[in-house]
Amino acid sequence: MSSPTEPAHLMESLVSLAKRRGFIYASSEIYGGLNGFFDYGPLGVELKRNIRDCWWRDMVHRRDDVVGIETSIIMHPKVWEASGHVAGFTDPLVDCRVSKQRYRADQLFFSPVVIDGKTVGYVSALESENTAGELQTAAESFKRKKALQGALAPVVAKDMTEAREEEIVLIPSPATGEPGSLTPPRAFNMMFQTNVGAMSDASSVAYLRPETAQGMFVDFKNVVDTTRVKLPFGIAQIGKSFRNEITPRNFIFRSREFEQMEMEYFIHEDADWAKVHEEWIVWCETWLKSIGLPDSHLSRFTHPKEKLAFYSRGTVDIMFKYPFGVQELWGIAARGSYDLTQHANASGKPQELFDEASKKKFVPHVIEPAVGVDRIFLAVLAAGYAEEDVTDEKGNVEKRTVLRLSPRLAPVKVAVLPLLKNKEQLTNRAKALYAKLRRNYAVQYDDAAPSANATAGRTRPARRGA
Amino acid sequence: MSSPTEPAHLMESLVSLAKRRGFIYASSEIYGGLNGFFDYGPLGVELKRNIRDCWWRDMVHRRDDVVGIETSIIMHPKVWEASGHVAGFTDPLVDCRVSKQRYRADQLFFSPVVIDGKTVGYVSALESENTAGELQTAAESFKRKKALQGALAPVVAKDMTEAREEEIVLIPSPATGEPGSLTPPRAFNMMFQTNVGAMSDASSVAYLRPETAQGMFVDFKNVVDTTRVKLPFGIAQIGKSFRNEITPRNFIFRSREFEQMEMEYFIHEDADWAKVHEEWIVWCETWLKSIGLPDSHLSRFTHPKEKLAFYSRGTVDIMFKYPFGVQELWGIAARGSYDLTQHANASGKPQELFDEASKKKFVPHVIEPAVGVDRIFLAVLAAGYAEEDVTDEKGNVEKRTVLRLSPRLAPVKVAVLPLLKNKEQLTNRAKALYAKLRRNYAVQYDDAAPSANATAGRTRPARRGA
Repeated sequence: MSSPTEPAHLMESLVSLAKRRGFIYASSEIYGGLNGFFDYGPLGVELKRNIRDCWWRDMVHRRDDVVGIETSIIMHPKVWEASGHVAGFTDPLVDCRVSKQRYRADQLFFSPVVIDGKTVGYVSALESENTAGELQTAAESFKRKKALQGALAPVVAKDMTEAREEEIVLIPSPATGEPGSLTPPRAFNMMFQTNVGAMSDASSVAYLRPETAQGMFVDFKNVVDTTRVKLPFGIAQIGKSFRNEITPRNFIFRSREFEQMEMEYFIHEDADWAKVHEEWIVWCETWLKSIGLPDSHLSRFTHPKEKLAFYSRGTVDIMFKYPFGVQELWGIAARGSYDLTQHANASGKPQELFDEASKKKFVPHVIEPAVGVDRIFLAVLAAGYAEEDVTDEKGNVEKRTVLRLSPRLAPVKVAVLPLLKNKEQLTNRAKALYAKLRRNYAVQYDDAAPSANATAGRTRPARRGA
Repeated sequence: MSSPTEPAHLMESLVSLAKRRGFIYASSEIYGGLNGFFDYGPLGVELKRNIRDCWWRDMVHRRDDVVGIETSIIMHPKVWEASGHVAGFTDPLVDCRVSKQRYRADQLFFSPVVIDGKTVGYVSALESENTAGELQTAAESFKRKKALQGALAPVVAKDMTEAREEEIVLIPSPATGEPGSLTPPRAFNMMFQTNVGAMSDASSVAYLRPETAQGMFVDFKNVVDTTRVKLPFGIAQIGKSFRNEITPRNFIFRSREFEQMEMEYFIHEDADWAKVHEEWIVWCETWLKSIGLPDSHLSRFTHPKEKLAFYSRGTVDIMFKYPFGVQELWGIAARGSYDLTQHANASGKPQELFDEASKKKFVPHVIEPAVGVDRIFLAVLAAGYAEEDVTDEKGNVEKRTVLRLSPRLAPVKVAVLPLLKNKEQLTNRAKALYAKLRRNYAVQYDDAAPSANATAGRTRPARRGA
């Protein structure tokens, strides 16, 4: 068996494997690609479908209290005013006036260069695995170039959102290395904008949804009125969302077009939200393990109270140890009655239920587990990737790449591999078996010689840990 | 059993049923809706999923020669230049300068009013079930109002794309009833446009795909290089597409956001394309019947040679008898090597295969069966809708609405309905059965009194013809 693969190498290997085996291609690759957009190839689409189908079965079909919906990607623009996205779904953006490059202010770091207690200049660096180290190197280089004498203080990394006005003109642009060209951060709305109808003016502006969740809030009353749901109950949805990220990165982890699996679980205003919240966190953790993600890669991050939105009761993220660091995989948020109340106010349509016990109307509260299909996909690849040394008949040791996938997710469920290609008796039976299995499963038939099936570099779905 | 339902009434009944039972809601309904956008409710999403899953199983899993992909909705803008959509994916649009209304020129009809062989004016009408009749009525009214004597000739309906320049100023706007305000038709591109990245200028323009098909062409070489496909083979995709229709109509039949199931079947340049074309037409017809659409509602329309695009070998549409008329459901087009050649030229990347026999490179030809999920959904509702007279225990006759769905598509596969609600022995067993079935099926549990289950107006999935 292989030793644990190094993180940097692992990410490269995953991207390469994903392309080579038809899991993931860059979108529009023959035209040079489009930054932040990806296509799923023949194996990728099957894996992705299995992720979605497992979630849907466990979340909707196997539960009494959750129903599904599919709402449109383009919704009425007032939805996004009410939700707060038009005003607040922004990233801080910094321009370099000389290079025309744009940066997310919170990903552009700087530090004063302090020699003998005196600030003699500034250095900058884009966020990386080792931002502080890069700033330190830049500071040393700055000192050397300017031929300055004295004791260089350790750098203190801040990002551009923390820069004082008088500092901004002194911080060098990462593009040019020279100060003076960076602008103060401004709010950049991340919703993709379009126009609906034949007019192309302010009256026709619409947005591609940046999340599926608002569909569940906007259709809340419709679902209540046309089904037999009773509190507590959830509305679930799987679908594409779009965010115009300034700097998409980490492969499919942060892309501009992605797929979400979200669920809004509505509870009574007097319900013990913390208990329900915890139950859903556990449900999500259990589900991730059920599709083969190892416990060792999962952790929790509780958002500090002071960083929560004013309406939020609490948010816990289930984190995954990606090759590029521990990052958010699944956010479970207790959002109170904020969303329904916002839509009630903006639409003039009450979003209340009637409480038989107290004979009063109330706005339900909500717990929201929200996860990205693509992030799960990447976690599954990262956790399943292994390189093994295998010895062939002649005693040669070769490296073999194996992708260990849970049988729930494997794109191919069964492979039919007859031992000989040219023995009709054998291949006829194998083909009949293949035809039979194919009725109900994704099956692959391969009559290449068995040695070929064991060749190094082949990727086969394998039972986790097998 | 009911007598056949009248078309106009049927469409109204379908829309009402779809809303009432949680199949389809207007998008963003609490904000007054958004024209041409729809949401699928709890029953609708299950039916829609079943349509997609049946197609995928039959098209991809159960065939040796078709693989699936999922490409991004936003692709490189050059894709749409090469495909011809930027230049040519347009509808002719006519403005009314006074009312600011906009019309599709091919849906706005007019006729001269001819009395005793002399043209005395013009009338207009929007396309409807009875356009000619409306124009005739308008002509008679015109004659009466102007107090003209003589023999009124029958109207001759043409649409605005056929209007001569000197006629346009004489044709009354449907909005005002007065001539002089309509503009000559101009080309309106139906692709939704957006901007990708932090810049909002010409360099960042991108489009929401108006079809999924280009994804298969752009990824053709990637699929060939990363799988073991050999000619003839197909690449299939299910996904959302967007068209900025000037006049979305007929419920989910022509909407602005919709879902397609397309497949590109690549064949050798010397293959008998007409034979493969016919095979795919038959495959599609058979498939539609396999999901319960009756033969009686299906027909074929062969596009006349003179109306085909220059590269097209032939297109046959499978038509469905919708309540609003016989309309296209599934188009099966023989497109030659046009698409791959366009992308080869535009990208500079050859899209060829090597022919072992002739030792020559060639660009494969393609057969494209393209169908909309929403159109199938509507066909299934229309064909399955029935109203029956049922007599209850007391001899009262009540009307019952029944939706007859194929078991392949039924949103609920099994209903567990214990006869008594308050008999624990019974309900415990019923609940255990429900829990067991739910592991693998979409199941509904309902312990309302059995009489309630037979109440008029209830919609239950039922075996077609049962």
